Amino acid sequence: MIALEEIRQQPDILQGWLDRQLESTRKFAAEIRKRKVEYVYLAARGTSDHAGIYAQYIWGALAGLPVALAAPSLFTLYKAAPKLARALVVGISQSGESPDIVQVIQEGRRQGAVTVSITNVESSPLESAAEYAIHLGAGTERAVAASKTYTAELMAVAALAALLSGSDANVQALHGVPDAVRCSLDLEPLLGEKVAAFTGMDNCLVIGRGFNYCTAREWALKMKEVTYIHAEAYSSADFLHGPIAIVGGGDVVMIVAPAGRTEKDFVRLLTTLQDQKKARVVLITDDSALVHSVPDGFLIPDTTPEWLTPITAIVPAQLFSVLLAGALGLNPDSPRGLSKVTRTL
Amino acid sequence: MIALEEIRQQPDILQGWLDRQLESTRKFAAEIRKRKVEYVYLAARGTSDHAGIYAQYIWGALAGLPVALAAPSLFTLYKAAPKLARALVVGISQSGESPDIVQVIQEGRRQGAVTVSITNVESSPLESAAEYAIHLGAGTERAVAASKTYTAELMAVAALAALLSGSDANVQALHGVPDAVRCSLDLEPLLGEKVAAFTGMDNCLVIGRGFNYCTAREWALKMKEVTYIHAEAYSSADFLHGPIAIVGGGDVVMIVAPAGRTEKDFVRLLTTLQDQKKARVVLITDDSALVHSVPDGFLIPDTTPEWLTPITAIVPAQLFSVLLAGALGLNPDSPRGLSKVTRTL
Repeated sequence: MIALEEIRQQPDILQGWLDRQLESTRKFAAEIRKRKVEYVYLAARGTSDHAGIYAQYIWGALAGLPVALAAPSLFTLYKAAPKLARALVVGISQSGESPDIVQVIQEGRRQGAVTVSITNVESSPLESAAEYAIHLGAGTERAVAASKTYTAELMAVAALAALLSGSDANVQALHGVPDAVRCSLDLEPLLGEKVAAFTGMDNCLVIGRGFNYCTAREWALKMKEVTYIHAEAYSSADFLHGPIAIVGGGDVVMIVAPAGRTEKDFVRLLTTLQDQKKARVVLITDDSALVHSVPDGFLIPDTTPEWLTPITAIVPAQLFSVLLAGALGLNPDSPRGLSKVTRTL
Repeated sequence: MIALEEIRQQPDILQGWLDRQLESTRKFAAEIRKRKVEYVYLAARGTSDHAGIYAQYIWGALAGLPVALAAPSLFTLYKAAPKLARALVVGISQSGESPDIVQVIQEGRRQGAVTVSITNVESSPLESAAEYAIHLGAGTERAVAASKTYTAELMAVAALAALLSGSDANVQALHGVPDAVRCSLDLEPLLGEKVAAFTGMDNCLVIGRGFNYCTAREWALKMKEVTYIHAEAYSSADFLHGPIAIVGGGDVVMIVAPAGRTEKDFVRLLTTLQDQKKARVVLITDDSALVHSVPDGFLIPDTTPEWLTPITAIVPAQLFSVLLAGALGLNPDSPRGLSKVTRTL
């Protein structure tokens, strides 16, 4: 199964990124600081959009940069681009081919903004459009549902946050990620056993917050792409503003809750979901006490700081989705109705 | 049924807003232009977040302002607010009470940004925190699932777009909205008949794009809040990047597709969904030809320009959700597990 092979390649790809791309990204970060951008305008779709959401949180938290996620249709359909001269304009795309993302970068450059592409394909249209390029170097991704290019995108985003923060400790923390991802992969046999109990579900909710809101979004997308199960992601804060109404007895709620600033809320939510709503909770956490509060808890290493846990936490979520697809008799390598490169205008 | 009464009040509330708030908003718009903001940083949750998404599109398209939707947890949980000095910082909240939204405004003001609240409750904490206040004046909203405060929020956002655009024609177009909403309400008897065929569904997808992406999001939230049906919203562009995989025969897909820049894409999507996927399509449009391409099409008036259709298009969606709840024997006035004011930190 190609999807599973590519998931397993992730530690080596992340190590390779650090070995080959960190220094060039350091130069780019120095340039951004010199050009005094006021905010970031970031365009991405699908899985890459979740790397954008990660950027929204950690570029804000570590580097003080507000991040606006672009509405590409303003550029393509409505021909009414906003002013971007004081922005850092970023395009993230595995293939570098989506014309709408390319147009956002082109318009930013036309207006004199600092522009950067983050792609896995050198000399792609997106890379050609941008002033600066960050390569993912993840090798060809053959499975339609992205895995290794997603974690490589997260690493690029994390590295930029660390470099812009001006803290050596933050940059140092990046080097612990490949090994932590290797530990996350050790969950594969346990996940292989556990997924069998979830083959009957029609839909589920996936909850994360703060730095790991992106993880919830990406997990939900993987579930839809490879298992065809309706999975919807929420921030725990938004979840309480309405959607919690739909949870009934026996419903599956998947939660990403590493130790850190968001954990207290999750402890309360776990009680509500399990005791009051009688929901079935699947939990990914790096808290070895919390993991035992649910029957289906998966422990990731606690060796990375909270802002880097999205790279380790998505790994069991990728495995869960792909192994469940296998248990359902589906082929996660080429889901129905999807192609690897989607061109939207 | 209170929910239905409040939906029917919308034309009068919108007219009242124009009569009482448009002039004070004009003064505020002049002030924003004078203070030379570079971009907007907007905080909102739940239904109000959908008014924020509307702002993201039309403040971009009509006024050239990039809009960043805030990540409030940066302010509350992580204590790491980004720099906001050159931003217009906006908080939208029906109750004006959510502490996280208040904190975003307080921080913006502390940093010297222009701050504005859009709320239905005068002297609420949010209003007290902001330099400028825009009142909704929608009267007390008693149904837990918002309707009239949502369309009033959209009107406030639309008015600001029109005033900042500097075009008298845009401001003039606002005055056509109350009557157009009145026409949308005429769909109630037809919707009342049609919903009976949808009582058996467990989940559905809601698709909109561009200006009406907010409508898709709000429709999906209404469905969840009052019918407890899993409904997930997508931009048609993102939908093709993965989630279309989950659509199977007999699945319900709800589409908001007024005539305009996005319509061509929807014509193609309708064919794919109906002919290839054998999905059941529910359609809201102002195109009298397109409406007949599906068995369950609902025609809204074509008297408003595309950028104002989110105010008319949400009305049949509100009615659909509330009438379907009634058909399911549920009480849409107070859904299980929800309270009117949600306080998140």
